[in-house]
Amino acid sequence: MDRISAQLAFLTEADRLKSVNRATTLCDASRRENSAEHSWHIALYALTMAEHAIRPVNVGRVIQMLLLHDIVEIDAGDAPIHGAPDPEAQAALEQAAADRLFGLLPPDQRDTYRALWEEFEAAETDDAIFAKSIDRVQPVIANLETGGGSWIEYSVTTAQLETRVGSKVKRGAPAIWEALKLRIDRWFEANT
Amino acid sequence: MDRISAQLAFLTEADRLKSVNRATTLCDASRRENSAEHSWHIALYALTMAEHAIRPVNVGRVIQMLLLHDIVEIDAGDAPIHGAPDPEAQAALEQAAADRLFGLLPPDQRDTYRALWEEFEAAETDDAIFAKSIDRVQPVIANLETGGGSWIEYSVTTAQLETRVGSKVKRGAPAIWEALKLRIDRWFEANT
Ligand SMILES: [Ca+2]
Repeated sequence: MDRISAQLAFLTEADRLKSVNRATTLCDASRRENSAEHSWHIALYALTMAEHAIRPVNVGRVIQMLLLHDIVEIDAGDAPIHGAPDPEAQAALEQAAADRLFGLLPPDQRDTYRALWEEFEAAETDDAIFAKSIDRVQPVIANLETGGGSWIEYSVTTAQLETRVGSKVKRGAPAIWEALKLRIDRWFEANT
Repeated sequence: MDRISAQLAFLTEADRLKSVNRATTLCDASRRENSAEHSWHIALYALTMAEHAIRPVNVGRVIQMLLLHDIVEIDAGDAPIHGAPDPEAQAALEQAAADRLFGLLPPDQRDTYRALWEEFEAAETDDAIFAKSIDRVQPVIANLETGGGSWIEYSVTTAQLETRVGSKVKRGAPAIWEALKLRIDRWFEANT
């Protein structure tokens, strides 16, 4: 297959990410958010808030990771932050999904995208640590805007939120977590 | 207002782009596409196909433009490619929308984002020309995948498609238009 056809095959398959729904809703609670629009939104979060990264990041690379980070969900589905999936089974599904989906691309791009996705998943480089922290910020805002959202649905406690979300946001962007924590504490005091 | 609060106010307002629907549908025709998921998809198109730009582009800047390019639609709505809006009235609405929406940001970011959006709209720099051409590619694929889509809805002819879409794609990425043209001609021969 020629290069453009392979690229278009990948991009056309990527369209299906628009039909993968997440646990969180839109900020007006009208419907669940899908992983494609979520990916746009957190790329915009990263662009806007990169100055708060704990160490300097290459925002272009962070955005590339975030554009790609959820594509495996086309085959593997979304694993909700506050759900209880089997992490090993989920990881195996995601590896198979990455093989198939990135495998649609010309080999050089397959390898570049796969490496960016693996870097994001490993969360060891400064770019990936910040990308992972931003990925956890947006659902907090969605829950605050909708009067609790998935926190109510999954009966989340502040201690669980601190472990599952706070620790990850703090690792990459402590100033953002500090700002969110004020709003979160106010919500939990009023509602639990 | 402090910096983080202003940034979060903008990012929360941006959530509403997920509720702006476009003329094109998803590739499985299940529903209309919204402008937020469209923005993610074309950022991925740009990342994947930047090598076909007529002149070298800074793909990081192109992606920033594409993440921002539709945000004015939150207030101004989407002007369909094959619809017939009043261009001056639409432009006035979009300028007012840009004032309000980018105005939520801290002043330095307001000015940076506004400048990127104006650059995209003006379509004069190499980055903007390529960004504009990629923005026209994805609806073509959606229409081909769904058996005609908005071409049928708006009774589009090949001549109109050449003017409204082809000329813009060719200006930034002639090799991509060449590949699409083969598929488009095949569709119009079979269906009109
Ligand atoms: Ca557009």
